[in-house]
Amino acid sequence: MPKQYPTVESTFTALADPTRRAVVQALSLGPATVSHLAAPFDMALPSFTQHLGVLEKAGLIVSHREGRARVCSLNPEALLAAEEWLAGHRRQWEARLDRLEAHLATTRKGEEKDD
Amino acid sequence: MPKQYPTVESTFTALADPTRRAVVQALSLGPATVSHLAAPFDMALPSFTQHLGVLEKAGLIVSHREGRARVCSLNPEALLAAEEWLAGHRRQWEARLDRLEAHLATTRKGEEKDD
Repeated sequence: MPKQYPTVESTFTALADPTRRAVVQALSLGPATVSHLAAPFDMALPSFTQHLGVLEKAGLIVSHREGRARVCSLNPEALLAAEEWLAGHRRQWEARLDRLEAHLATTRKGEEKDD
Repeated sequence: MPKQYPTVESTFTALADPTRRAVVQALSLGPATVSHLAAPFDMALPSFTQHLGVLEKAGLIVSHREGRARVCSLNPEALLAAEEWLAGHRRQWEARLDRLEAHLATTRKGEEKDD
Protein backbone atom coordinates (compact mmCIF):
# COMPACT_ATOMS: atom_id res chain seq x y z
CA MET A 1 0.00 0.00 0.00
CA PRO A 2 1.25 3.55 -0.74
CA LYS A 3 2.23 5.78 2.19
CA GLN A 4 -0.67 7.09 4.28
CA TYR A 5 -1.08 10.66 5.60
CA PRO A 6 -2.98 10.42 8.91
CA THR A 7 -2.82 14.18 9.53
CA VAL A 8 -3.95 15.46 6.15
CA GLU A 9 -6.59 12.69 6.16
CA SER A 10 -8.46 14.34 9.03
CA THR A 11 -7.78 17.87 7.71
CA PHE A 12 -9.21 17.14 4.24
CA THR A 13 -12.15 15.21 5.76
CA ALA A 14 -12.90 18.15 8.07
CA LEU A 15 -12.66 20.68 5.22
CA ALA A 16 -14.88 18.64 2.87
CA ASP A 17 -17.92 20.11 4.69
CA PRO A 18 -19.22 23.65 3.92
CA THR A 19 -20.23 24.38 7.56
CA ARG A 20 -16.77 23.45 8.81
CA ARG A 21 -15.06 25.52 6.08
CA ALA A 22 -17.25 28.48 7.08
CA VAL A 23 -16.10 28.06 10.71
CA VAL A 24 -12.43 28.08 9.60
CA GLN A 25 -13.18 31.20 7.53
CA ALA A 26 -14.85 32.92 10.51
CA LEU A 27 -12.03 31.99 12.91
CA SER A 28 -9.36 33.28 10.52
CA LEU A 29 -10.60 36.74 11.59
CA GLY A 30 -9.98 35.93 15.27
CA PRO A 31 -11.20 33.77 18.18
CA ALA A 32 -14.97 33.50 18.71
CA THR A 33 -17.41 31.88 21.11
CA VAL A 34 -19.39 28.81 20.03
CA SER A 35 -22.67 30.76 20.15
CA HIS A 36 -21.19 33.54 17.98
CA LEU A 37 -19.91 30.96 15.46
CA ALA A 38 -23.24 29.10 15.42
CA ALA A 39 -25.37 32.23 14.87
CA PRO A 40 -25.23 32.34 11.00
CA PHE A 41 -26.33 28.70 10.70
CA ASP A 42 -29.86 27.36 10.61
CA MET A 43 -28.77 24.30 12.58
CA ALA A 44 -29.47 22.77 16.02
CA LEU A 45 -26.62 23.54 18.46
CA PRO A 46 -25.75 19.83 19.05
CA SER A 47 -25.25 19.33 15.28
CA PHE A 48 -23.12 22.47 15.14
CA THR A 49 -20.95 21.42 18.10
CA GLN A 50 -20.44 18.04 16.36
CA HIS A 51 -18.90 19.97 13.44
CA LEU A 52 -16.66 21.84 15.91
CA GLY A 53 -15.66 18.45 17.38
CA VAL A 54 -14.54 17.22 13.93
CA LEU A 55 -12.48 20.42 13.43
CA GLU A 56 -10.94 20.10 16.91
CA LYS A 57 -10.06 16.39 16.41
CA ALA A 58 -8.41 17.32 13.10
CA GLY A 59 -6.33 19.91 14.98
CA LEU A 60 -7.77 22.75 12.87
CA ILE A 61 -9.22 24.54 15.90
CA VAL A 62 -8.55 24.66 19.62
CA SER A 63 -11.00 25.75 22.31
CA HIS A 64 -11.01 26.77 25.97
CA ARG A 65 -13.59 27.87 28.57
CA GLU A 66 -13.98 31.55 29.46
CA GLY A 67 -16.55 31.70 32.26
CA ARG A 68 -19.71 30.12 30.86
CA ALA A 69 -18.63 30.44 27.22
CA ARG A 70 -16.40 28.20 25.08
CA VAL A 71 -14.00 30.20 22.93
CA CYS A 72 -12.60 28.67 19.71
CA SER A 73 -9.40 29.67 17.89
CA LEU A 74 -7.86 28.61 14.61
CA ASN A 75 -4.73 26.43 14.65
CA PRO A 76 -2.82 27.59 11.56
CA GLU A 77 -0.37 24.66 11.76
CA ALA A 78 -3.01 22.18 10.52
CA LEU A 79 -3.77 24.48 7.56
CA LEU A 80 -0.04 24.69 6.83
CA ALA A 81 0.40 20.89 6.91
CA ALA A 82 -2.36 20.43 4.30
CA GLU A 83 -0.93 23.32 2.23
CA GLU A 84 2.47 21.60 2.23
CA TRP A 85 0.96 18.28 1.16
CA LEU A 86 -0.72 19.97 -1.83
CA ALA A 87 2.29 22.16 -2.70
CA GLY A 88 4.68 19.20 -2.48
CA HIS A 89 2.78 17.20 -5.10
CA ARG A 90 2.15 20.23 -7.31
CA ARG A 91 5.88 21.15 -7.28
CA GLN A 92 6.88 17.55 -8.03
CA TRP A 93 4.61 17.66 -11.10
CA GLU A 94 6.00 21.05 -12.18
CA ALA A 95 9.62 19.91 -11.69
CA ARG A 96 8.91 16.95 -13.98
CA LEU A 97 7.50 19.31 -16.63
CA ASP A 98 10.60 21.52 -16.33
CA ARG A 99 12.86 18.48 -16.82
CA LEU A 100 10.81 17.43 -19.86
CA GLU A 101 11.09 20.93 -21.37
CA ALA A 102 14.85 21.02 -20.77
CA HIS A 103 15.17 17.58 -22.38
CA LEU A 104 13.12 18.69 -25.43
CA ALA A 105 15.22 21.87 -25.79
CA THR A 106 18.46 19.80 -25.76
CA THR A 107 17.02 17.33 -28.29
CA ARG A 108 15.97 20.22 -30.59
CA LYS A 109 19.45 21.79 -30.41
CA GLY A 110 20.95 18.41 -31.40
CA GLU A 111 18.58 18.18 -34.39
CA GLU A 112 19.46 21.73 -35.52
CA LYS A 113 23.17 20.78 -35.52
CA ASP A 114 22.39 17.71 -37.67
CA ASP A 115 20.56 19.87 -40.29
CA MET B 1 -25.21 31.61 5.08
CA PRO B 2 -21.45 32.21 4.80
CA LYS B 3 -19.85 32.10 1.36
CA GLN B 4 -19.51 28.62 -0.20
CA TYR B 5 -16.50 27.27 -2.12
CA PRO B 6 -17.84 24.84 -4.74
CA THR B 7 -14.37 24.07 -6.15
CA VAL B 8 -12.51 23.42 -2.91
CA GLU B 9 -15.55 21.41 -1.74
CA SER B 10 -14.92 18.73 -4.37
CA THR B 11 -11.11 18.95 -3.97
CA PHE B 12 -11.20 18.41 -0.20
CA THR B 13 -13.84 15.65 -0.55
CA ALA B 14 -11.68 13.89 -3.15
CA LEU B 15 -8.53 14.19 -1.02
CA ALA B 16 -10.25 12.94 2.16
CA ASP B 17 -9.71 9.38 0.87
CA PRO B 18 -6.32 7.59 1.19
CA THR B 19 -6.63 5.74 -2.17
CA ARG B 20 -7.33 9.01 -3.99
CA ARG B 21 -4.42 10.78 -2.23
CA ALA B 22 -2.14 7.90 -3.24
CA VAL B 23 -3.26 8.36 -6.87
CA VAL B 24 -2.42 12.10 -6.69
CA GLN B 25 0.95 11.19 -5.17
CA ALA B 26 1.65 8.65 -7.96
CA LEU B 27 0.59 11.06 -10.72
CA SER B 28 2.78 13.86 -9.34
CA LEU B 29 5.68 11.76 -10.76
CA GLY B 30 4.11 11.79 -14.24
CA PRO B 31 1.16 10.46 -16.29
CA ALA B 32 0.24 6.79 -15.83
CA THR B 33 -2.25 4.27 -17.21
CA VAL B 34 -5.24 3.18 -15.11
CA SER B 35 -3.86 -0.38 -14.83
CA HIS B 36 -0.45 0.96 -13.66
CA LEU B 37 -2.16 3.19 -11.07
CA ALA B 38 -4.42 0.35 -9.86
CA ALA B 39 -1.58 -2.19 -9.46
CA PRO B 40 -0.53 -1.30 -5.84
CA PHE B 41 -4.13 -1.58 -4.56
CA ASP B 42 -5.88 -4.72 -3.37
CA MET B 43 -9.15 -3.45 -4.88
CA ALA B 44 -11.53 -4.51 -7.68
CA LEU B 45 -10.96 -2.41 -10.84
CA PRO B 46 -14.55 -0.98 -10.88
CA SER B 47 -14.05 0.35 -7.30
CA PHE B 48 -10.69 1.82 -8.31
CA THR B 49 -12.09 3.52 -11.43
CA GLN B 50 -14.84 5.01 -9.21
CA HIS B 51 -12.07 6.69 -7.20
CA LEU B 52 -10.53 7.99 -10.44
CA GLY B 53 -14.00 9.32 -11.39
CA VAL B 54 -14.19 11.33 -8.15
CA LEU B 55 -10.71 12.78 -8.80
CA GLU B 56 -11.62 13.63 -12.41
CA LYS B 57 -14.94 15.30 -11.41
CA ALA B 58 -13.02 17.36 -8.84
CA GLY B 59 -10.68 18.48 -11.63
CA LEU B 60 -7.65 16.97 -9.86
CA ILE B 61 -6.86 14.62 -12.74
CA VAL B 62 -7.54 14.49 -16.48
CA SER B 63 -7.49 11.38 -18.68
CA HIS B 64 -7.37 10.42 -22.35
CA ARG B 65 -7.31 7.21 -24.41
CA GLU B 66 -4.04 5.95 -25.90
CA GLY B 67 -4.92 2.90 -27.98
CA ARG B 68 -6.57 0.45 -25.58
CA ALA B 69 -5.23 2.15 -22.44
CA ARG B 70 -6.58 5.15 -20.50
CA VAL B 71 -3.80 7.51 -19.41
CA CYS B 72 -4.30 9.80 -16.38
CA SER B 73 -2.44 13.04 -15.63
CA LEU B 74 -2.45 15.39 -12.65
CA ASN B 75 -4.10 18.81 -13.01
CA PRO B 76 -1.97 21.04 -10.75
CA GLU B 77 -4.49 23.91 -10.94
CA ALA B 78 -6.95 22.12 -8.64
CA LEU B 79 -4.16 21.53 -6.11
CA LEU B 80 -3.22 25.21 -6.35
CA ALA B 81 -6.83 26.36 -5.77
CA ALA B 82 -7.05 24.33 -2.54
CA GLU B 83 -3.58 25.54 -1.48
CA GLU B 84 -4.72 29.15 -1.96
CA TRP B 85 -7.87 28.57 0.08
CA LEU B 86 -5.79 27.22 2.98
CA ALA B 87 -3.03 29.85 2.66
CA GLY B 88 -5.58 32.69 2.47
CA HIS B 89 -7.15 31.78 5.82
CA ARG B 90 -3.81 31.03 7.46
CA ARG B 91 -2.40 34.43 6.36
CA GLN B 92 -5.53 36.25 7.56
CA TRP B 93 -5.02 34.66 11.00
CA GLU B 94 -1.31 35.54 11.02
CA ALA B 95 -1.99 39.14 9.89
CA ARG B 96 -4.40 39.48 12.83
CA LEU B 97 -1.71 38.22 15.23
CA ASP B 98 0.80 40.71 13.74
CA ARG B 99 -1.68 43.58 14.27
CA LEU B 100 -2.28 42.43 17.87
CA GLU B 101 1.48 42.33 18.54
CA ALA B 102 1.96 45.81 17.03
CA HIS B 103 -0.90 47.11 19.17
CA LEU B 104 0.59 45.57 22.33
CA ALA B 105 4.01 47.04 21.52
CA THR B 106 2.48 50.53 21.10
CA THR B 107 0.52 50.17 24.36
CA ARG B 108 3.68 49.07 26.21
CA LYS B 109 5.64 52.07 24.88
CA GLY B 110 2.84 54.37 26.08
CA GLU B 111 2.99 52.76 29.55
CA GLU B 112 6.79 53.17 29.70
CA LYS B 113 6.39 56.90 28.96
CA ASP B 114 3.85 57.20 31.79
CA ASP B 115 6.29 55.60 34.29
